[in-house]
Amino acid sequence: MEGVDYLADERRKAEFDVNEMKIVWAGSRHNFELSDRISKLVANDPGFSKEGRTMLPRKELFKNTLRKAAYAWKRIIELRLSEEEAAKLRHFVDEPAFTDLHWGMFIPAIKGQGTDEQQKKWLPLAYKMQIIGCYAQTELGHGSNVQGLETTATFDPQTDEFVIHSPTLTSSKWWPGGLGKVSTHAVVYARLITNGKDYGINGFIVQLRSLEDHKPLPGVTVGDIGMKFGNGAYNTMDNGVLRFDHVRIPRDQMLMRVSQVTKEGKYVQSDVPRQLLYGTMVYVRQTIVSDASNALSRAVCISTRYSAVRRQFGSQNGGQEIQVIDYKTQQNRLFPLLASAYAFRFVGEWLKWLYTDVTQRLQANDFSTLPEAHACTAGLKSLTTTATADGIEECRKLCGGHGYLCSSGLPELFAVYVPACTYEGDNTVLLLQVARFLMKTVSQLGSGKKPVGTIAYMGRIEHLMQCRSDVKQVKDWLKPSAVVEAFEARAARMSVACAQNLGKFDNPEEGFAELAADLAEAAVAHCQLIVVSKFIEKLQQDIPGKGVKQQLEVLCGIYSLFLLHKHQGDFLGTGYITSKQASLANDQLRALYSQLRPNAISLVDAFNYTDHFLDSILGRYDGNVYPKLYEAAWKDPLNQSDIADGFHEYIRPLLKQQLRTARL
Amino acid sequence: MEGVDYLADERRKAEFDVNEMKIVWAGSRHNFELSDRISKLVANDPGFSKEGRTMLPRKELFKNTLRKAAYAWKRIIELRLSEEEAAKLRHFVDEPAFTDLHWGMFIPAIKGQGTDEQQKKWLPLAYKMQIIGCYAQTELGHGSNVQGLETTATFDPQTDEFVIHSPTLTSSKWWPGGLGKVSTHAVVYARLITNGKDYGINGFIVQLRSLEDHKPLPGVTVGDIGMKFGNGAYNTMDNGVLRFDHVRIPRDQMLMRVSQVTKEGKYVQSDVPRQLLYGTMVYVRQTIVSDASNALSRAVCISTRYSAVRRQFGSQNGGQEIQVIDYKTQQNRLFPLLASAYAFRFVGEWLKWLYTDVTQRLQANDFSTLPEAHACTAGLKSLTTTATADGIEECRKLCGGHGYLCSSGLPELFAVYVPACTYEGDNTVLLLQVARFLMKTVSQLGSGKKPVGTIAYMGRIEHLMQCRSDVKQVKDWLKPSAVVEAFEARAARMSVACAQNLGKFDNPEEGFAELAADLAEAAVAHCQLIVVSKFIEKLQQDIPGKGVKQQLEVLCGIYSLFLLHKHQGDFLGTGYITSKQASLANDQLRALYSQLRPNAISLVDAFNYTDHFLDSILGRYDGNVYPKLYEAAWKDPLNQSDIADGFHEYIRPLLKQQLRTARL
Repeated sequence: MEGVDYLADERRKAEFDVNEMKIVWAGSRHNFELSDRISKLVANDPGFSKEGRTMLPRKELFKNTLRKAAYAWKRIIELRLSEEEAAKLRHFVDEPAFTDLHWGMFIPAIKGQGTDEQQKKWLPLAYKMQIIGCYAQTELGHGSNVQGLETTATFDPQTDEFVIHSPTLTSSKWWPGGLGKVSTHAVVYARLITNGKDYGINGFIVQLRSLEDHKPLPGVTVGDIGMKFGNGAYNTMDNGVLRFDHVRIPRDQMLMRVSQVTKEGKYVQSDVPRQLLYGTMVYVRQTIVSDASNALSRAVCISTRYSAVRRQFGSQNGGQEIQVIDYKTQQNRLFPLLASAYAFRFVGEWLKWLYTDVTQRLQANDFSTLPEAHACTAGLKSLTTTATADGIEECRKLCGGHGYLCSSGLPELFAVYVPACTYEGDNTVLLLQVARFLMKTVSQLGSGKKPVGTIAYMGRIEHLMQCRSDVKQVKDWLKPSAVVEAFEARAARMSVACAQNLGKFDNPEEGFAELAADLAEAAVAHCQLIVVSKFIEKLQQDIPGKGVKQQLEVLCGIYSLFLLHKHQGDFLGTGYITSKQASLANDQLRALYSQLRPNAISLVDAFNYTDHFLDSILGRYDGNVYPKLYEAAWKDPLNQSDIADGFHEYIRPLLKQQLRTARL
Repeated sequence: MEGVDYLADERRKAEFDVNEMKIVWAGSRHNFELSDRISKLVANDPGFSKEGRTMLPRKELFKNTLRKAAYAWKRIIELRLSEEEAAKLRHFVDEPAFTDLHWGMFIPAIKGQGTDEQQKKWLPLAYKMQIIGCYAQTELGHGSNVQGLETTATFDPQTDEFVIHSPTLTSSKWWPGGLGKVSTHAVVYARLITNGKDYGINGFIVQLRSLEDHKPLPGVTVGDIGMKFGNGAYNTMDNGVLRFDHVRIPRDQMLMRVSQVTKEGKYVQSDVPRQLLYGTMVYVRQTIVSDASNALSRAVCISTRYSAVRRQFGSQNGGQEIQVIDYKTQQNRLFPLLASAYAFRFVGEWLKWLYTDVTQRLQANDFSTLPEAHACTAGLKSLTTTATADGIEECRKLCGGHGYLCSSGLPELFAVYVPACTYEGDNTVLLLQVARFLMKTVSQLGSGKKPVGTIAYMGRIEHLMQCRSDVKQVKDWLKPSAVVEAFEARAARMSVACAQNLGKFDNPEEGFAELAADLAEAAVAHCQLIVVSKFIEKLQQDIPGKGVKQQLEVLCGIYSLFLLHKHQGDFLGTGYITSKQASLANDQLRALYSQLRPNAISLVDAFNYTDHFLDSILGRYDGNVYPKLYEAAWKDPLNQSDIADGFHEYIRPLLKQQLRTARL
C-alpha cells in the first residue's frame, strides 16, 4: 500500500461491519486470526515473492518452487509452527508443489490404509520429510476407472516379496504430482496377484529414488510428463511418469489395513470394514469444496475491485465515465459469482460437519448414512468445481482486455484451478453417481424406507409432485420457504421424470446409459438444492455484526434467484412455477443487485486477502491499477533492450528487401 | 503418419463421402484445393515446425516467431505466391505475429481511410514490407469506448504539422499487436484538435522507429506490455505500449478520406459518406465469425478423435473398455459443438455474401440495409466467439486429464482464442447494440416500415405472438418449418416483452440500463435464430456427394434442438411450446446423436486439418496417442537430467535434516 486508497469511497458506502463479516467468512474468530497472521507473515517475507513467476522458463520455475518449499519448511521449523499453522503457511505460499502430495495424499494414504505397525514405521520418516512421497494411482491409459489399472504386484513366496511391474505402455503411471523429479517414495496402486489369482487393486509403498544421491533405483524409470496449461500454474509441479521393470519390495510394504497377504501368499480380508476408505473420500472432496470457495472468491475479489476502478462509456459532457460495476450486465454476471463464493463457503463448512458426523458413525459401525454422504460430497464436488472454473474465466472476461495479461492474476488462477474439474472424480462421472443414488431413492420410496439427510425432501414426494408456487408479487421471492420449495419441487420432479423414463427400458443399464444427459441434469438440480438449503440454514443461525446477516440474505437471494432464472426451463417445465412467477423472480433479482451494489467492495474485502496472495494488479486493495500496470510492463524480458533480439537477423533483412540472401 | 491407422475402423463406418464434405466445409473446390496445398506445404517445411513452442522462454519464443515471419515472407517471394495464397500460408503457419496486424489492420486502415494520394504513397511501401505497421487505437484506460480516447493530435499551422501527444498515463496506447518491438509505423487514433476545438477521433500515420537502426524516434516511448495467458499463445506477439511526447508529423499523415484539415487549420468533411467505415467493420467481424468456425472445429477434431481412442469403464470380463465417445454424456457435450462448428461455418459463408451485398449498396449510396447488417454482424461476432471460447474449453475437459497437457494442443488453442471475446467489440457491449436495433424495430412495427433481411420475421409479429407449436411426435421436430417458427416466435416474443417492460420507465435510457440483462438475452435469441435459419437455408441448396446432405441435416437438427433444450426456459416461458413438446425435442436430439455417432470421425476428418496445424497428440489423424504422449514427455527440459536442478541446494538438505544451515 502506498498511501492513497482509490477505493476509499466504495469502502465508505458499506452498510455492514466488514470485520464481523471477515469472521463469518473465515468460519470462526480462531480461523480468521490464524489466516490473517499467517497470510501476512508470508506476504511480508521476500523469500515467498511471486515476482516474475509467469516469465520463468520451466527449469528455473521449478527450481524456484523447490527453493520455496525448502524455505517454507525451514520457516515452519524455525517458528515452531503447529501442524495447522504449517498447512496454512503452505496454502498462502500459493504455489503447487510436491509437498501438497506428500502431506495431502502420501501421508493420509498410509494413515488410512496402513496397519498400526506400518504407520509406526513410515509416518515418522514422512513427518520429518526424511522421505518424500507421492500417490501413484492413475496410469497413461486409466484415469477415472481405478479398477482398470494395469500395473501388477505379484507375490513371490520364495523371497517374501512383491514384484511390481508395468506390463504395457498404457500401464505407465502418469500424472501423480511430486513423482517426476522429487519423491523418494510412492504409494503405488497395482493389481495384487498371488497364487496366480488377481485380487484387484491394492496400495504398496515403493521406494523410487536413492536417499543418498536421488538416482532412480534399478528397474525404475521416472520423469516429468511435460508442460501443462498456463504460464506458471501447475508447471511448478513435477507431475510424473513412472514405469517398473520387475521391481521387488518386501511383503510388508503392501498397505495391509483392509486386506493382507500372508507369508504363504494367502489373500486375507481383515475385519476393518472397507467402508472406512469412503470416509477418506468424503474428507478429500470436502476440502475440494472449500478450495472452490477460495479460488472463486479470489477471482471475484479481483474482478469486483477492478470493476469499480474501470470506467467506460456514459460520459455525456467530458466528465468521468461510468464505473463498469454500475452496469446491470456487469452486475448480472459478477454478483451471482460473488454470491456463489459465499454459498460454496457455507456448504463447505457444512461438509466439514458432515465429515465429522460420518467418521463418528463409521467408528460406531453405523454405515447407514454413508451412501447419502457419498452422493452429497460427490455431487457438491462436481457442482462447485465446475461453477468455479467457469466463474474464474467469467471474472477474467469481466476485466476486459486487461484480464488477459498475466499481471491480472486471472489467467494463472484459471489454469491452476481447472484440473479440479477432472481430478478426484471427473465431474460428469460424479454427477452420474449422484443420479444413481437419486434413482435408487425414488425406487425405494414406496418401501417405507425413509430418506434422510439431504435427500429427506423425497419423503414429501406426494406434496412436491403436486404443489405449485404461491408467489404473487416480487417480494414473495424473498421468503426462504418459497425458494426452498421451488428447488425441492424441481429436483424431485426431475428425478421422478427420469425414473419414469428409465422404466420404459427393458434393460435398466441400457436406459441409464441412454438417458445419462437427463440424469446428470437431475443430479445438478439436487445438488443446487443442497447449496441453497445450506445457505438458508446458515441464515437461520444467530449471526452477529451490524448488517452482516442482511448482506448474507441479499447474497442468498441472488444465488438462488439467479439459478432459478438460469434454469428457468426446469422450473417451468416441471410446472411448479408460471412464466409470470419466473418474471417476478427476475425482477426481484434485479432489485437485489441494486441492494448489493454499495456493499460489493466491502463484501470482497471480507475475504481478507493480501495483495501477495491475490497477485493481481487489477485486484490491488488500493485500486491503484493503471500506474502499476504500466510499471509492470517494463519488466518483461522483451523490454531488456530497445531493439528486439532478432532484429538484425529477421527484421532488418525484411525492411531492406534482403531476404533472398538471408539465412533463416 | 507411421503406417497404422488406429482410427481406420471408425473411418470405415462413415455413411457419406468425406471428400465431398471437405469441399462443402471449404466452401468451394477452389478453396479446398488451395487450403489443402498450402497447409501441406507448411506442414512439410521444417522451417515452420512447432516443436517445443510451449517450452520456450519469452525472448526465445518471440525471436523464433520473428524468424518464422521472415521465413514465411521469403517463401512467399520465392514461390511467387498470390495474395490469396500468401494469406493462407500465414494462416497455416499458425502463430500470432506482427504480420497479422500489418496485413490485417494497418494496410486496410490506409486503404479504407486514406485518400488516393495517401494510398499511392504508403501502400507500396507496406506491400513490400519496407515499412511495418500496426493499428494503435486502444489505450490503457480506454477500450470499447473509442470516443473516450485521450491521445491528442493538435494542429500547428505554423509548421503545417500535427503534434501527437499522450497527455495522461491512461492515454498510453496499450495492446496494439506488433507495436511493442517490431512496427516502424502505426496508424494512431487521436483526438484531432485544431484552432482550439476538439473534432473527435481521427487516424494518423506516425513513424515510431528508425528504418535504419530500429531505434524509437525522439519523443516516442515504446515497449511490450508483458506476458499474456498461455504458454506460447499470444506471447509470440509484441502487444505494445506507446507514449508520445509532442511528436510532430506532417499534416498529410492524417488519414483524410472522410475529413481533412486544411493548411489553415480548418476542419472539413469530405463528401465521402462516413457509413463507408461501417463497411470495414462488417468485413472484420465477418472474418471473426469464420475464424470461430476454424478454432472450434480444431478443438472438436481433437476431442472427437481422442474420444474414439480413449476407453474407460464398462468392461465386464477383462475385455476392452468402452470408447468414451459412446457415452451419451460425452455425446451430449461433444456433438452439439461439432454441429456448432458446421453451423458457424455456414453462417460465416453467408456473412461473406452479406458483406459483398452491403459494399455494392454503399457504392450505390444505398444505406438502407446498413443498420440491419451492422446488428447482424455484431450479434454473430458475439454469439460465435463466446460459444467457441467456451466450446474449446469444453473440448479440453472432454479429453479428461490429458487435455491439460500442452501436448494436447487444447490449452494453447484456448489461450490464443479467448481474446476474440473482447477485441473488435466486447461481446456484451455488442449484444446490447443488437438489442437497441431490436427495440427500434419493434417500436417501428406499427409505422408501416417493413423489416428486412434477418429481421424480416418481425413483419409477421401478429402471427408470431399468437402461434403455438403443432409438434405432436418426436419426428415432427425434424421439420425445418417447425424449428424455424419456434426460434422466430421465441425471439419475437422476447423482444416484444422487453419493449413492453421498457415502456414502463419514464426515461427510456434508464429503462435500457436497468433491463440490460434481459435485453442481452433477447439479442442472443435473435442471433441464434439467424444461425439456425442460415443452416436450414444452406440445406435447401443442392449439395452433391453421397450422404453429405443427410449428415448436414443431422448436424442442423442437433444444433437447433440442443439450443432449444438449453434455452428451454425461453421457449416454455414465452408459451410457444409445452413441456411435453420440449421433452419430444429432447428425445429427437438423443436419436440424432445415435445417427451421428458412426460418422463422427469422418465429420471431423472433413475439416482436412494436417497434424502440423492441429499440433495435438490427442488429435493425431492416426490415433496413435499413448506412445506419442510417452515419447513427448521426455523432451521436457526437466528431463534433461535424472537428478533435478536444485536437488543439492533444496531437496538433499530437506531429506538430510540440514535445513537450518542451508542457504535458501
